[in-house]
Amino acid sequence: MPETHARRRSLLRAELRARELDALLVTDLLNLRYLTGFTGSNGALLVHAEDDARSVFCTDGRYLTQSETQVPDLERVIDRPCDTALAKRARGRLGFESHKVTVDGLDLIEAAGDAELVRAAGLVEQLRLIKDEAEVEALRMACAAADRALAGLVEHGGLRPGRTELEVARDLENRMLEHGAAGPAFETIVAAGANSAVPHHRPTGAVLRAGDFVKLDFGALVDGYHSDMTRTFVLGSVADWQREIYELVAAAQAAGRGALAVGTKVSDVDAAARAVIEAAGHGDHFLHGLGHGVGLQVHEAPALSKVGVGTLAAGMAVTVEPGVYLAGRGGVRIEDTLVVRAGAPELLTLTTKDLVVV
Amino acid sequence: MPETHARRRSLLRAELRARELDALLVTDLLNLRYLTGFTGSNGALLVHAEDDARSVFCTDGRYLTQSETQVPDLERVIDRPCDTALAKRARGRLGFESHKVTVDGLDLIEAAGDAELVRAAGLVEQLRLIKDEAEVEALRMACAAADRALAGLVEHGGLRPGRTELEVARDLENRMLEHGAAGPAFETIVAAGANSAVPHHRPTGAVLRAGDFVKLDFGALVDGYHSDMTRTFVLGSVADWQREIYELVAAAQAAGRGALAVGTKVSDVDAAARAVIEAAGHGDHFLHGLGHGVGLQVHEAPALSKVGVGTLAAGMAVTVEPGVYLAGRGGVRIEDTLVVRAGAPELLTLTTKDLVVV
Repeated sequence: MPETHARRRSLLRAELRARELDALLVTDLLNLRYLTGFTGSNGALLVHAEDDARSVFCTDGRYLTQSETQVPDLERVIDRPCDTALAKRARGRLGFESHKVTVDGLDLIEAAGDAELVRAAGLVEQLRLIKDEAEVEALRMACAAADRALAGLVEHGGLRPGRTELEVARDLENRMLEHGAAGPAFETIVAAGANSAVPHHRPTGAVLRAGDFVKLDFGALVDGYHSDMTRTFVLGSVADWQREIYELVAAAQAAGRGALAVGTKVSDVDAAARAVIEAAGHGDHFLHGLGHGVGLQVHEAPALSKVGVGTLAAGMAVTVEPGVYLAGRGGVRIEDTLVVRAGAPELLTLTTKDLVVV
Repeated sequence: MPETHARRRSLLRAELRARELDALLVTDLLNLRYLTGFTGSNGALLVHAEDDARSVFCTDGRYLTQSETQVPDLERVIDRPCDTALAKRARGRLGFESHKVTVDGLDLIEAAGDAELVRAAGLVEQLRLIKDEAEVEALRMACAAADRALAGLVEHGGLRPGRTELEVARDLENRMLEHGAAGPAFETIVAAGANSAVPHHRPTGAVLRAGDFVKLDFGALVDGYHSDMTRTFVLGSVADWQREIYELVAAAQAAGRGALAVGTKVSDVDAAARAVIEAAGHGDHFLHGLGHGVGLQVHEAPALSKVGVGTLAAGMAVTVEPGVYLAGRGGVRIEDTLVVRAGAPELLTLTTKDLVVV
């Protein structure tokens, strides 16, 4: 996708010119991947503000072949370390990622060349807030792998009394791999019974039992993009208190999704879902923010929370994941990944949110 | 293991006094884990040079319960962000991890309090070079999980023509989990046929065939410690050229292990193994360093390579992993994890290094 990467660099270069920078030294590996497609573990990019033909990509000899394929459209330097090799070639006002470069690293960059170093934090992250179609397509594939894995797990009786949380987690992760994931997007959460009341429970040897809530929070990694979904099931038969909090969380989640509109404050999206839970007297049982951005990182901007700042824009990919957790009894969380659109948001995680009893 | 962590802090505190620092602000999460046992994703530690009772640990509210269990022996602050919360409490000369703290991060730390900030890079990493018994025990368990997984794979016919590299990789990883690993130590390498000539091949849908080399480079993660082992098998029957390079690499690997002695220069260990391969005319087919330190990171100091500096000391954990790679045909790498001891090194990866035909 050289065109995609050139387009992203073009947007960045306009921003550099607006800040009167001659170039930006990109050293963060995710930002590098976003701007070039390079997936190796060592590299850097000098983005030239005026002329992309003068931008230079650097990696080391291990990635000679890989970088030829992944980065065919940029001048390439094979050297090590890359940050100083590129700084040596820069002139004028050189922006650097001051939120990523270490104090010692800056010394080396300063000593390498003659450019005037200027702090330029978060410029690429600002672009990454708005997903382009290539990114949304990767997110769709990641969400589809997770949906299919969960469907397979349920169909094949993978959620049954007697299995351990760890067994279910491995089964689910293997199914994501079978459906095209390069790996899990994060450590899979499987939480049975009282463990479901722990928001970020790590799976253990605890055994699933009839009457339990089983909360699954998991995602797939595809082309570097992360999906993130939570579903909560009941094993066997449903108690009244379980149905009550399930329906409450589902209503709050629908309210949160309904608030996802261009121009809405991110804190208002949180408030829309939280109000439903607070009105039912469970405000103290919903202890975390409503959601977060998702993309090349599983948690990235924007934060949909009480203290989040900013407004939604078309192309932002976010999760909506309210929960109610009753300590010692059990908890429910329901989470989707969605893309904010001019009209209704695009839902990427398609598994039903109806209460499923298995 | 509060005693273990207190002992590590005591060694660090002596180093702080030698540098006339009043305290060190530890913000790197692996260094934090090493000094406290804390495994969460956010935290920091202020290590007091004179009196450990004045050292302070910080994390946020998500880790309230976990940190009570993991860090029972230190004064604790629940706040966010932790680096500035601790900097605020410091007086006098405060060391900070200038190789880890970002340029923007230092601004915030400086603004938070009155301490005089002093660069203090790599102090904890220097201690981490020498593994204590708790660390060696974790490495032993990690290596044992990998050994057992590989034995199970071979016994159950997991290495057979018709399987794909990816299938073998997943099988091996699942077996490591069954043997107590929290996960793979890094992305498992399974490389069949000509792919075995690529040092860091990522597993693909390529099918294993009779007559192939199959190179497996993998490890297990146990208690935060990484094992690292490579074995190369032949499927079916062995060609003469395969036996020849296998025996060559095995001899080079034995020479490298034999050179692991207290006081030996790390570059001489590399040279000992490399000389064997060069004498056979394959010097150009051994493209990487001989090995690396292993511990809380899968690659850490010391580097056993031509350009590595320093000498071996008792308690260093390192890999020895020469390889010969014949492009388009196939390659062999044999790798162990070992601990340098006063006498012979302690071998942690116990799988046979004889040529195994499966």
